[in-house]
Amino acid sequence: MAITVVGSVAFDTVETPAGRRERCLAGAATYFSLAASYFTDVRVIAVVGEDFGAEQQAVFDAHKIDTRGIERAPGKSFFWQGSYLENINEAKTLQTDLNVFAGFEPKIPDAYRDSQFLFLANIDPVLQRRVREATPNAKLVAGDTMNYWIKDHKPALLEVLKGLDILLINDTEARMLAGKENLVQAARAVMDMGPRMLVVKHGEYGATLFHKSIPKGHKSESFRAPAMPLEQVVDPTGAGDSFAGGFFGYLASQKELTPGVFRRAMFYGSVMGSFACERFGTERLQELTREAIDERFHFFRELTHLD
Amino acid sequence: MAITVVGSVAFDTVETPAGRRERCLAGAATYFSLAASYFTDVRVIAVVGEDFGAEQQAVFDAHKIDTRGIERAPGKSFFWQGSYLENINEAKTLQTDLNVFAGFEPKIPDAYRDSQFLFLANIDPVLQRRVREATPNAKLVAGDTMNYWIKDHKPALLEVLKGLDILLINDTEARMLAGKENLVQAARAVMDMGPRMLVVKHGEYGATLFHKSIPKGHKSESFRAPAMPLEQVVDPTGAGDSFAGGFFGYLASQKELTPGVFRRAMFYGSVMGSFACERFGTERLQELTREAIDERFHFFRELTHLD
Repeated sequence: MAITVVGSVAFDTVETPAGRRERCLAGAATYFSLAASYFTDVRVIAVVGEDFGAEQQAVFDAHKIDTRGIERAPGKSFFWQGSYLENINEAKTLQTDLNVFAGFEPKIPDAYRDSQFLFLANIDPVLQRRVREATPNAKLVAGDTMNYWIKDHKPALLEVLKGLDILLINDTEARMLAGKENLVQAARAVMDMGPRMLVVKHGEYGATLFHKSIPKGHKSESFRAPAMPLEQVVDPTGAGDSFAGGFFGYLASQKELTPGVFRRAMFYGSVMGSFACERFGTERLQELTREAIDERFHFFRELTHLD
Repeated sequence: MAITVVGSVAFDTVETPAGRRERCLAGAATYFSLAASYFTDVRVIAVVGEDFGAEQQAVFDAHKIDTRGIERAPGKSFFWQGSYLENINEAKTLQTDLNVFAGFEPKIPDAYRDSQFLFLANIDPVLQRRVREATPNAKLVAGDTMNYWIKDHKPALLEVLKGLDILLINDTEARMLAGKENLVQAARAVMDMGPRMLVVKHGEYGATLFHKSIPKGHKSESFRAPAMPLEQVVDPTGAGDSFAGGFFGYLASQKELTPGVFRRAMFYGSVMGSFACERFGTERLQELTREAIDERFHFFRELTHLD
């Protein structure tokens, strides 16, 4: 089944202990789309500027990603510059230029209307809500957000949460959103805001899926997926979006959404997040194969399974 | 097979968001022994003062822990006071009184000499080394340490590491000991110092077992065990020692130390660490049953396994 994703398509300049890259193709919707494209059809809603050229378009085309919903606007694309020199786990933002993103009015192409899977990547919750409301037929809706929206735009975000089946955030965001330090308590509080499932990403320690109700035949309301023990994190930018792409892409590729399918989706999320960190920007995600992905999936199984 | 453990038997006063307890029976060797006692015979080497009475002795006796190696000295037992009010994951030390521990000279009773499993709990590496050298027949030797010894007694600690099969430490200690931020690189550097296996404990995110050489039939040099998603951490003191007790206790109870046995040992370590946090001091560890332990083991399997 096809996924529609709304979010940023951008250029990033990043520096990490492994080096520096100027103006890589980036943005949450880009990472998400590339990761999900290995599992299912993906349709993007975004806005780019005149600096988005044939080279960038070719990346989407090579992965058969539908870009009819990417609007071209006069001006420059969203630009972010960050540094991981001090802390490889947390970016220090050096510059953020919204550019054409400042006036973004998401438009959903008619050709996208039959998408049953909708992903609201990290953007202004007002826009997330608008896209959610314009796709009432979506069967499964997931979304992401960040500290900025939690801190300064909470009322708008709470409206979005009511329309989500699954929220994907990190530990700090979950604690901040819930106002609770204990993660299990925080997860329950967040699910009381709307989503019936919550994925909390723990960076190098993996991720936990929480269910509002314990799935049938299970004893636990949660499931833990590992992260890859990486000897070198070249660039962690987009790891969370790539996790979301692997997770949601795998879900959308399955006929039935059983508890077991959600578990495997968590593994595929971690797999795609780990690949994203191995090279700068979306470089690694651009060149994967489904075989390499499944090989890592099996490695993850060995990493965590007793037998 | 019996385990000999050397370490502290002490009294702790702790305050956490869940409350306060005065002078609980505590100490690394106490937590370790109680946790390991559910799996195998345990023999303790320690020193206590005149405040260690019939009540404390009864706790060891109830778990058939051999205390002939616990020396009674004039004075008071080791005392520690800490607070978790600011951070449930990291104790703030308010008071440390070495008391009789200041002059501790570990003596190994003859009855302990056939122990093939030796655990060197977190004490002065000079003492750890002395006990290690006095037990040349030990088949498997594991140990723990802490930031204080890494920072200020590194040469002595490095001598201990040469005699260890397995070191158990937390992330911060692994990074500090290796002088490397990346955990995989840090693990390799630590194993180059001696131990052929390293267990890195990640607190609420579980723990990773690293092997110096990839075990036969496997692809990964590491294995990840989860931690219990706890809705309330009453008192995290001793969680690491209890992990070590469950891990090493299970190993000592097995006929063959296969890679699969080490994986299950990691799960039992996490299980015992999670129980330790559920009540103050060693309260929860004192009242467990093997059935409750195995039930949680199966819960951990469900928490992490795809099928």
